[in-house]
Amino acid sequence: MKNLFDTKFSGNFQNIPPSFIREILNIANRPNMISFAGGLPNADYFPCNELAVSAQEVICGQGRALLQYAGSQGFLPLREWIAGRYNDKYGLQIKPENVAITHGSQQTLDITAKMFLNPGDEVIVEKPTYLGAIQAMSGYLPRFVAVDLFNDGPDIGQVETACWEKTPKYMYGIPNFQNPSGICYSRKKREELAVLLKKYGLLLLEDDPYNEVRFAGIDTPPVFCYAPENVLWSGSFSKMVAPGLRLGWLILPETLTPHFVKAKQSTDLHPNNLSQYILYHYLTHFDIDEHLEKIRKAYKRQCNTMKEMIRKYLPEEIVMTNPEGGMFLWLTLPESMNAEKLAYRCIEKGVAFVPGKSFFTNGEGSNCIRMNFSNTPDNLIEKGIRIMGEKMALFCKKDQLISID
Amino acid sequence: MKNLFDTKFSGNFQNIPPSFIREILNIANRPNMISFAGGLPNADYFPCNELAVSAQEVICGQGRALLQYAGSQGFLPLREWIAGRYNDKYGLQIKPENVAITHGSQQTLDITAKMFLNPGDEVIVEKPTYLGAIQAMSGYLPRFVAVDLFNDGPDIGQVETACWEKTPKYMYGIPNFQNPSGICYSRKKREELAVLLKKYGLLLLEDDPYNEVRFAGIDTPPVFCYAPENVLWSGSFSKMVAPGLRLGWLILPETLTPHFVKAKQSTDLHPNNLSQYILYHYLTHFDIDEHLEKIRKAYKRQCNTMKEMIRKYLPEEIVMTNPEGGMFLWLTLPESMNAEKLAYRCIEKGVAFVPGKSFFTNGEGSNCIRMNFSNTPDNLIEKGIRIMGEKMALFCKKDQLISID
Repeated sequence: MKNLFDTKFSGNFQNIPPSFIREILNIANRPNMISFAGGLPNADYFPCNELAVSAQEVICGQGRALLQYAGSQGFLPLREWIAGRYNDKYGLQIKPENVAITHGSQQTLDITAKMFLNPGDEVIVEKPTYLGAIQAMSGYLPRFVAVDLFNDGPDIGQVETACWEKTPKYMYGIPNFQNPSGICYSRKKREELAVLLKKYGLLLLEDDPYNEVRFAGIDTPPVFCYAPENVLWSGSFSKMVAPGLRLGWLILPETLTPHFVKAKQSTDLHPNNLSQYILYHYLTHFDIDEHLEKIRKAYKRQCNTMKEMIRKYLPEEIVMTNPEGGMFLWLTLPESMNAEKLAYRCIEKGVAFVPGKSFFTNGEGSNCIRMNFSNTPDNLIEKGIRIMGEKMALFCKKDQLISID
Repeated sequence: MKNLFDTKFSGNFQNIPPSFIREILNIANRPNMISFAGGLPNADYFPCNELAVSAQEVICGQGRALLQYAGSQGFLPLREWIAGRYNDKYGLQIKPENVAITHGSQQTLDITAKMFLNPGDEVIVEKPTYLGAIQAMSGYLPRFVAVDLFNDGPDIGQVETACWEKTPKYMYGIPNFQNPSGICYSRKKREELAVLLKKYGLLLLEDDPYNEVRFAGIDTPPVFCYAPENVLWSGSFSKMVAPGLRLGWLILPETLTPHFVKAKQSTDLHPNNLSQYILYHYLTHFDIDEHLEKIRKAYKRQCNTMKEMIRKYLPEEIVMTNPEGGMFLWLTLPESMNAEKLAYRCIEKGVAFVPGKSFFTNGEGSNCIRMNFSNTPDNLIEKGIRIMGEKMALFCKKDQLISID
């Protein structure tokens, strides 16, 4: 629907891409839809009872403080908890003064883009990359410099070329179990990237929401560990605990922290205080590691089921990634197969997934598919993929018919 | 502290003004400080026990839903509640489809600015206006067209001149108990403004966080009632219930709603689900009107105490506004008196307030002061204003001495 105000929109706003995925997700939420489309954690593992106890405790005990306005940077004890956890895990020296709490990672993407991007500025991204990041950054009119992503991480040569030929404001990357591909950077690639960051004075926005959801292989330190002065390291409680809390964090180089906090304050004053207090109580009164173990076990099982069913029901020429964590795997179909068309046909039969094109900044990916395995029970994973297989077979046949015609 | 990344900041970010008020508020939060500086509701009236009950109920009963990712526009039952309340109050026909839940009003200011403002675009604001709005909009590099604010509202002639001579993207105004001045637009001014909006196709962002906190006079319908197609009407639960919930809302003309939701989604995916469920339970299981009556009574008492003490202890040439609601009143000192200097002298004696300059987009207001009355008990209101009076007297004397020298 058009009206007289449509002409008033800013250039920045108009550049935010129309969201095919929003449409798909609305459809995927219909009852009885088998959805591999969303990026939803498994709700079976939300610690409801524990959070209810924590909520009761903190609202009764500290209601006057937690219901009041609060600091823009976030609740200090929660920032201390985050610094402490990752200092222990990686032998770091993060100070709570350099941790900022956000309204989830998406807000981090928006605020960093706001801080750094003038229209026309270059940002290095992976190919494919997280579509929420494309949306957030697009609102600031950058030029994306997309580098190839291999099974062990980005093409480091292409990153160096970008640094050398252009003046990228920062690189945005997801080294652990990338959304959408499930790919994890190797240690070697992380070290090489860190060298480049320092050599060229490049910033990396390291998006790491799945850090705690590794279910196979060996933990690899974040790029932040190798170049802490050049990395904004972003984390999230959405996958560790629950997305409905809307809490993430960003660990920053010391000189950037006050600037990030200023940009954040102009955007929303401060993080949700109720959520922060409840979460902090939960983290310090219940066993988060035991909780994470349960999630990892479940996701490993679901991922394995999905891989098995893909081998069983989908054409063998399909290439899939082999995630060691996170919530997604990535399918590359034969070039002739259009994932968007396939998506609409599968939706008719009650199965949803996200076609790959939305994860590219340059129109590639039309034969790719992102599959979420964390939010579907094993029996429905089988049923859904069987249906996808049927539709793909039909698709191939039709294509042949058309080419015979 | 400078580092190599400082040169990378965007022009937009650099335009966000340095915040004197952040500094003041940090000081104001020191223990034993009597603070008229913040815009804090009175924590004595936070419904802690009720919210604890609601939290327990909804997390135990609906945890799987409320802890999961959710819709960008917000929790539908809460949007229905908002539409219903204001349809009843003002005889309107707001549809829940045109209500969006936000992370507080500040987010509304940021997202509307993002939607509409190209660098150099004009926005009409009141003089003075809410400093959080100046900060949020400044990040999008607009030119502010500031119109005079009288005791009955803005200078309508100046608004019309702005529409006629320039092409403002929208007007930002706070018709009820304005922050910082406490001023309320008369019904006549609201009607006149609505006529202009329609005549010139102008949008109004009507910021109305204090709608439910009127403690004197007669309720006047929002400008939205007179020109619903031209007004984005912004509300907040921060003053009705508690700011720590971080929940506000925006009621939009139908054609703008999907655009706002898209801009919001790119910024933070969706509102805090935990807060939304708890708040909705609270609103539908407890008596919000009884609760509001308590707040109004308290604020009326606190406002009266403050006015009385100002008359008792401050120089009689000081002009003050006469708020019928909200949380602020506004002092205009003799022109020779510099409010920032006075602020530092008062802080030394344990009293904080916000100097007026921060509320102007053009450097005016150096002899003005914003006073918050809602967050200080009556005895401390007296003590704080007595100290301010002593410092002002000293200030006048010194000025005289200097002029004698």
